[in-house]
Parts: sequence; C-alpha cells; structure tokens
Amino acid sequence: MSLVTREAVDSRQDILRTAARLFHQHGYDATSMNDVAAALKLSKGGLYHHFQSKDEMLFHIMNHALDITEERVIKAVRGIQTPEERLRMLIRLHIEVVLSVRDREITVMLHENHPLPPSLRKQINQRKKDYIHFVEGVIADAQRQKGSKGTVTPRAAALALLGMINWIYQWYKPEGRLQAQDLISQYTEIIFAGTFQ
Amino acid sequence: MSLVTREAVDSRQDILRTAARLFHQHGYDATSMNDVAAALKLSKGGLYHHFQSKDEMLFHIMNHALDITEERVIKAVRGIQTPEERLRMLIRLHIEVVLSVRDREITVMLHENHPLPPSLRKQINQRKKDYIHFVEGVIADAQRQKGSKGTVTPRAAALALLGMINWIYQWYKPEGRLQAQDLISQYTEIIFAGTFQ
Repeated sequence: MSLVTREAVDSRQDILRTAARLFHQHGYDATSMNDVAAALKLSKGGLYHHFQSKDEMLFHIMNHALDITEERVIKAVRGIQTPEERLRMLIRLHIEVVLSVRDREITVMLHENHPLPPSLRKQINQRKKDYIHFVEGVIADAQRQKGSKGTVTPRAAALALLGMINWIYQWYKPEGRLQAQDLISQYTEIIFAGTFQ
Repeated sequence: MSLVTREAVDSRQDILRTAARLFHQHGYDATSMNDVAAALKLSKGGLYHHFQSKDEMLFHIMNHALDITEERVIKAVRGIQTPEERLRMLIRLHIEVVLSVRDREITVMLHENHPLPPSLRKQINQRKKDYIHFVEGVIADAQRQKGSKGTVTPRAAALALLGMINWIYQWYKPEGRLQAQDLISQYTEIIFAGTFQ
C-alpha cells in the first residue's frame, strides 16, 4: 500500500473512530456532522469529502466493526484443526474484541438500533447473519467431535453464546470484579458444561 | 381501586405503550411529544397533563418494564421452594416476558442507550442491579443444592443468562424456526449442562 493510500485510509478510520466516540457519549441523534467535523478540527467540506451523511458514517462504523470481527475472530480461528479448540478460541477472541478499549466504541454501534436506510441496513444484517452462521458451524463441528446427542441445536447455542458475549457491554466496568480472563474462562465453562460443574 | 383511578392508570399506561411503539418504530429522537399526542388523538395539553417531557415518558416506560419483570418473574418464582426449580421457572418466565407480544415494545426500551437525566438513570440502573442480584442469588442457591464446586461464579452465570435472554430481541422473529418453547428448553439446558449433552 502506498504512503498516500495508507494516510487516506487512516484518515477515514480516524473520522469513524471519532464519530463513534461522539455517538456513544452524546447519542447518535444529538450528534451532528458539525460536531464530528469540530472534534476532528476539520472543515465541514473536509468531512463531507469523506462522508456525505451521518447515515453513511454509521454504516461504515458498523461495517468496520464487522471487519474487526472477521479479521480477529473468523480468520484467526479458521486455521485451528480441532473443532473443540476452534470453539474455545472463538469464545476467547470474540470476548477480547468486545472488551478492546481501542474498538469498543466502534463495535458497540453494531447493537444500537438507529434507523439506517433499508439498502444499507440489509448489507449490515447480512454480514451479521453470516457471522451467526459461522458460529453455528463451529458449534455443530464441536458437537459432532464430542458425540453429543444434540438436545441443544447449534443455532440456539450460537445465539445464546453471542447473546452472552455481546451483552457484556451493557454491564462491563474495567474496574469491576469480572475481568477479561475470568469472563473468558467462565463463559467457556458455561458453554461447555453449564453452570453447575 | 375505584373506577376513576383504574381509568386514570389505564390512560397513563396507554400513553406509555403508544410512546414505546413509536420510539421503537421511528427511533426515540425522531419521535416528538406531538407525534405521541397525535397517535393517541390527545391534545398536546392532554399529553402534558400526564408527562412533562419525552425523558419523563422514557423513564416511566423503563420503570414499567421493570415492574413487569418484578411482577411476572420475581414474584412468581419467590414462592418456589426448590432452588433448581426456581431457576428453571425464572428462565421460563423471563423468556416469556421478553417474547410477550403485548409488552415487547415496552421491555425492549430497557436496553436502548438513550440519554436520561442522571437522577432518573440512577434509579433505573439501581433496579436493573437489584434484578441481576436476585438472579445471582437464585443461581447461588441452585449451585449449593446441586453441590457444584463453583468453577462458574453465580455472578458470571447471572450475567451470561441475562445476556442470552435479553439478547433475544435482537434476532427473534415470530415466524422463525426457534419458538418460545424451543428457546426455553434449550436455554435451560445450556445453563444446566452446557451445549454438548
């Protein structure tokens, strides 16, 4: 990647990161394009050069959150041969994405219910569905490996697991009792053996 | 309760129910007090007689959602003697509240991140914490009854369970494959024994 392109990409990502932080702090509707431009010390024209509207920024924030998940979870677990280990690693890496200080304001936007134009909403929803499907496949493989009789379907298990993990942002406090490592080990234990071992 | 009081209560609840539906359909910020009054065929004065602001309506919607949870989950499970049965019933009843067609638009507002004035936000957060604490207690009792060695703490288990259940609104479709009964039995199985039985 040439230096010029690299800078252009960074600049777009900086804009999205700042916008996500403002949306998070002040609310999506209460934040204007002007607020985003001011926080970045950009002229309004400079911002509009990159993004035409708040909708467009929101769409790219959500897409970026899905890129992060794809890069740091899907790609990282695909190479693991044993299904059970693949599932353990998926739980660990997805929790780490959710707790990442750098990306938290980006990834949290995935779960906010702000109205996007239908064509953009559709693209985001399709990528979310693809991820659920991926998790479902990892669980199905692990169930086969462990010879489970399948009382719990891979679909219900995937939705339960994603609920547990994606809900973390609703209660997590960096200074709280439950730290990343506790969460990873205990959530893994729940998925593998329930809460009564 | 006299007839007059009963009607007054119904009228406030009707307003909250309609407001919750509009917030859900069009977004909180995009919905004005005027929109709520118009949908109810009330004059603006008639609406302001009950609620002074959107913040106040949002607060009462959230409080009402917590009343519903208290009434239909907490009160209903308190009488159950066996801890394990109490936990099973809690999972069932909380899922039923989340899936209730009548209350879905009310309860979903609990999880939306709209800015409330700090004093109101504090009251809601305290009630949410009380509920987490209640679930934690039910799980702790069940773990004691089953003699589990406690690899999974009641706190992590409570947060995982509430995540699984409260996340349902993000993906649930009434016409989808996973119906209430499937969800209840499979989520119960995950909490009791994991996904690999």
